[in-house]
Amino acid sequence: MSYNPIDLSLYLVLDPDLCRDLEGMVRTARLAAENGATVVQLRAPGWKRRQWLEAARELKAVLAPFGVPLIINDHVDVALAIDADGVHVGQDDLPATEARRLIGPDKVLGLSVSNAAELAAVPQDVDYLGIGPVYATGTKPDAAAATGVSLFGHLVAAARLPVVAIGGINGGNCAPLFAAGAQGVAVVSAICGQCDPARATAELRTRIGSAKQRR
Amino acid sequence: MSYNPIDLSLYLVLDPDLCRDLEGMVRTARLAAENGATVVQLRAPGWKRRQWLEAARELKAVLAPFGVPLIINDHVDVALAIDADGVHVGQDDLPATEARRLIGPDKVLGLSVSNAAELAAVPQDVDYLGIGPVYATGTKPDAAAATGVSLFGHLVAAARLPVVAIGGINGGNCAPLFAAGAQGVAVVSAICGQCDPARATAELRTRIGSAKQRR
Repeated sequence: MSYNPIDLSLYLVLDPDLCRDLEGMVRTARLAAENGATVVQLRAPGWKRRQWLEAARELKAVLAPFGVPLIINDHVDVALAIDADGVHVGQDDLPATEARRLIGPDKVLGLSVSNAAELAAVPQDVDYLGIGPVYATGTKPDAAAATGVSLFGHLVAAARLPVVAIGGINGGNCAPLFAAGAQGVAVVSAICGQCDPARATAELRTRIGSAKQRR
Repeated sequence: MSYNPIDLSLYLVLDPDLCRDLEGMVRTARLAAENGATVVQLRAPGWKRRQWLEAARELKAVLAPFGVPLIINDHVDVALAIDADGVHVGQDDLPATEARRLIGPDKVLGLSVSNAAELAAVPQDVDYLGIGPVYATGTKPDAAAATGVSLFGHLVAAARLPVVAIGGINGGNCAPLFAAGAQGVAVVSAICGQCDPARATAELRTRIGSAKQRR
């Protein structure tokens, strides 16, 4: 049972290196929100919390007019400090149950899972799952091995929650993931660091629309 | 005005590398609490939050019987999750005012300052200050330049809060810091990684007692 519905269709995970700096991140987030991104996540593993807080505040202000929720990766305290729309945790972060207790029932809570064992252990507190990496990815050095579309489909079928696919996803390879049951796809380098993030987002959105219709 | 009084006399900052592993940290904390440490801080910059949470839970359980408060460095969410006694933030962490808002009025809040400008900007939300590094230190690679005893004394005189000195402190060099107005000294390698942490703590405690009497 999902507490908080969220449109996972085109889920942008911001990468501070690919976006170069805070200004680049904020600009990318704005262009993505204008052109069809449905969720934005702030993820900056190497940053100190002061920098997280500043970025999160700016992103929240930029995304709010579009009604695009801002999800904070891992840093529950930053999410609380800026009253973000939600939190996304991984298997090495605070357990989902702890995160839910801290953020309360009205915020979105996402959890990353990579395999059937992690899927079986997902608590009720979670709103959606991030499953991946589905394809090989260069933007998360500590990611698990890629599931591929077939195993991804099995995991989605076993999941009782909406699923966003993540890992190496772009416009050219996203369709099979929707066919396999994904509610959405999370992208990093398919938008961050692209010469024209607005156009990249709009094209992704078109492809996602077609893929969802064909389902 | 300090909200929450705390005995800063002998403030142990745990170092996961010097203590080797979680078991070593817990053992060190217990021996230190048994032998006169008055506060213990968990600080593990390289750790994932899941590990922080486990360590914090174990440390809280070990320290509680001694009435020794457990302070969590930087990770306000971990502190909230385990209901720790307090939080210590640095200049790159969540601002003290945000941290206070998240932990509430009844928890201890410490803030690190290294110079007069940082001292002048300390908000009312803080219970105590960590001032340093007073001596050169090997356990915090990103620390500022050492203040030395003289500048430390000037900073303490200008501070309106209890001060714990930190940075390169051991039994042999702690006395001048009390003479300069410190309420306590924070130590890392003077206890963590010592062959006999119990004896090291007891000896420090004796020296601190003498230094405080001579003031």
